[in-house]
Parts: sequence; C-alpha cells; structure tokens
Amino acid sequence: MYKVKVYITLRESVLDPQGSVVKQALHSMEFKSVEDVRVGKYMELTLPSSVENVEATVEEMCHRLLANPVIEDYRYEIEESVAQ
Amino acid sequence: MYKVKVYITLRESVLDPQGSVVKQALHSMEFKSVEDVRVGKYMELTLPSSVENVEATVEEMCHRLLANPVIEDYRYEIEESVAQ
Repeated sequence: MYKVKVYITLRESVLDPQGSVVKQALHSMEFKSVEDVRVGKYMELTLPSSVENVEATVEEMCHRLLANPVIEDYRYEIEESVAQ
Repeated sequence: MYKVKVYITLRESVLDPQGSVVKQALHSMEFKSVEDVRVGKYMELTLPSSVENVEATVEEMCHRLLANPVIEDYRYEIEESVAQ
C-alpha cells in the first residue's frame, strides 16, 4: 500500500485572499507579529501496492486534477507501508 | 525569521465529502486504483525572529483559530531561516 501526501500551494506571484483573511484574524487576536500567511491544500491518497510506476501516476494526477498548474505548485511524498 | 508549516487534517472518524468527490473524479479518469482520498489544509506562516516561545504561539494559533480541534487534527513544523 502506498500513502501519498500531496502539498499544493499557490505560486508566489499569485495573490492569496484566504491567507490575507487568516492573517487579519490572527492580528485581531493577540498574534500581531504574524508577517504572512499562505493557505494551500494537503491531500492524503491511498494506493494499492499493485500500482506500477507510482511516481508517474501521482505526477499525472496532480497535474491533471489535483492542482491547477497555472497558479499552483505541488509537491508530493510517497511512502510505502505494509497494510495491517 | 520563522517559517511555520501547518498541516490540518480531518480526524479519521469524520466523513470527508470533499475527499470522496476527488476520489470519484480520479476514478472517472483512468486512476481507478485509488483507494482513498482525504483532503486537508496546509498553511505557511511567517513570523519574525523576535517572537518568543514560537512553539507555544503556534500551538495556540492552531488550537484557537487555524484548526477546529473537535473534528480536525493538526501538526506543524517550525523552521528558523535567515532573511535574505
């Protein structure tokens, strides 16, 4: 079984209104020192061990569906684990 | 300067409709082998080096605002980096 962790973030040049709102909320609490907040997505996928070429498969899933490559960057970690 | 990476995931026992939709979408493409998808949030926070007790601050931010501790788990990584 493969556990895949996918991290999707907005590209540096893209405005992040959701991050701005979180920053304002933190400032309005006692956390006035927060300089920047960027909000992204995190996904955990489970794939069976029978999948061939996991890395290429995950790359294609990210590129075609999970992320929007025009405005987002993605990275992933693939862990093979033994099912219990 | 501190770079903080926060990972927020739904607790195992909580249904994840967004994850189900992503799984269905992957199945309707050629990725029929995907067994499970869980969708969470990923945030990057920037804090100045002057902040005292970073870990306690981040813990409190997560607990009070960033995550909903009733249905979500969170973990974070704190990296100290030198501003360029």
